[in-house]
Amino acid sequence: MNLKLVREADQRIRGHIQETPVMTSSSLNTITGAEIFFKCENLQRGGAFKIRGAMNAVLSMSDEELSGGVCTHSSGNHAQALAIAAAERGVSALIVMPKNAPRAKREATAARGAKITLCEATAEDRERTLRKLQEETGAAFIHSYNDPRVIAGQGTVVLELRQSVTDLHSIVVPIGGGGLASGSCLSSGDVKVYAAEPEMADDAYRSLKTGTLLGPRPALTIADGLRMPLSERTFQILQEHLEEILLVSEEEILAAMRLLWERLKILVEPSGAASFAAVLRHKDVFAGKKVGIVITGGNVDLDAAALGRLFR
Amino acid sequence: MNLKLVREADQRIRGHIQETPVMTSSSLNTITGAEIFFKCENLQRGGAFKIRGAMNAVLSMSDEELSGGVCTHSSGNHAQALAIAAAERGVSALIVMPKNAPRAKREATAARGAKITLCEATAEDRERTLRKLQEETGAAFIHSYNDPRVIAGQGTVVLELRQSVTDLHSIVVPIGGGGLASGSCLSSGDVKVYAAEPEMADDAYRSLKTGTLLGPRPALTIADGLRMPLSERTFQILQEHLEEILLVSEEEILAAMRLLWERLKILVEPSGAASFAAVLRHKDVFAGKKVGIVITGGNVDLDAAALGRLFR
Repeated sequence: MNLKLVREADQRIRGHIQETPVMTSSSLNTITGAEIFFKCENLQRGGAFKIRGAMNAVLSMSDEELSGGVCTHSSGNHAQALAIAAAERGVSALIVMPKNAPRAKREATAARGAKITLCEATAEDRERTLRKLQEETGAAFIHSYNDPRVIAGQGTVVLELRQSVTDLHSIVVPIGGGGLASGSCLSSGDVKVYAAEPEMADDAYRSLKTGTLLGPRPALTIADGLRMPLSERTFQILQEHLEEILLVSEEEILAAMRLLWERLKILVEPSGAASFAAVLRHKDVFAGKKVGIVITGGNVDLDAAALGRLFR
Repeated sequence: MNLKLVREADQRIRGHIQETPVMTSSSLNTITGAEIFFKCENLQRGGAFKIRGAMNAVLSMSDEELSGGVCTHSSGNHAQALAIAAAERGVSALIVMPKNAPRAKREATAARGAKITLCEATAEDRERTLRKLQEETGAAFIHSYNDPRVIAGQGTVVLELRQSVTDLHSIVVPIGGGGLASGSCLSSGDVKVYAAEPEMADDAYRSLKTGTLLGPRPALTIADGLRMPLSERTFQILQEHLEEILLVSEEEILAAMRLLWERLKILVEPSGAASFAAVLRHKDVFAGKKVGIVITGGNVDLDAAALGRLFR
């Protein structure tokens, strides 16, 4: 995979996605000692960058390929993104979702007209449920981060950011399955790409350290979008291009998220705050530098109990 | 007062304030049946439009007038705004604040270097405390909405909105003391100005209906920024120019606020959601029209207990 694929994706999805704003904050610059440019993909259609990859995949396909609709498994933002993209092409979207997915993400996906099938929160049950759906419907599977069309689409975030802000020293993105991180590596030019990963889901960190692709950790981190393991494809791209993975604790994610809500007045989900958490923790890496931070999503459950877990 | 004063304020405060974004949402257009343009003053410096009026007042004054610093009473956003403006002129800001002001607003004001004096939540104690401060320091009093320089500054919100969106049918702003509503009347041209007021603080509604300036209702509405009564000056401007006051219930304010958080992914405080609540309740007034809605502020306490009161 290469930059050309990202540029083609960019052309293909223009007009179907938002060009999201870049925010700055003098108080957050003071706190970090860096000059930060926040690329606000929480203000993207569907509340997350995921629409870029899903839209690129669906717009790349022929009517025939789409005749049985599309399907995927996802705990959240990719599900909603695929539902939007499918609706725009007028085909059905079938989503396999674990029972413990956030309510807001489940409801938003259903509201886009997708058909949701719940499964247990295990890889086995997820695969089994999806296979059964595919056999019944002939729907085309669009993986949330191993699909090259999805990776190319996610790469357009950094392409757009580099068009609005020149001379960046580095870009920081959160990492789960590695779709955004891989796409960013393809589109970053000579800008260094760092990825932020929860300590409680540090499979990507350990995979890159050991050179062996490891499976997922138990899905315990509050950053529900970052619980998946790397895939063969993302592992390979990241081995080649990624500068480094920076680990962050659960407390650091929540503290970073709170600062973003307070200072930027925008909703950021825990996964979306991991990149800023990494810059707060690893200040020495970014001091005095122009840093692009991708805020990946803003889909949080807005009820007292759920908010109580995020803001103690 | 007239449009010329607003234009002068606009020139004066450029470069000291943010030009805030205008957001749109197809799903909120569908829900309301109107074409809505949200002017996001929650993304303004200090998290609210109030910086416009405070900055215009402080930048209008001579060094001599400012020699004793500035002072005011405010439960929140005007306090923080005046603190920012004073700091930019290098003079001290003395703020009288009721004990029941939201913690986030008190802390943010203190963080800007203002000196806060707490008082009881009564008009008498507020006036007495402020008078004492003025006598001790010689600080210049900048009222949060009766001061003509403040009203002119607040009028720049609508001036800016009309520059980005043409052919608006109407503009809806929340009303407390009437500073923003009055400034909007001065700068709205031939666009109708509606004001949204909580039923539980409907003194402005009743004042305009009866033609007699009434005092405040007990400060019970959740929209803490809308608890103040009109002043002589704002009452007069509104009598002359305002289209109508639309009442909204507490439940309607919270429901509108939740929709804005969910769909726009931005923090909006209860007062800031009142204008959208009015459009949701009075759909017949705005159906099929291009409507500007001012989201006035986004300063909310981010802790479990406070959020639990907003999202049940």
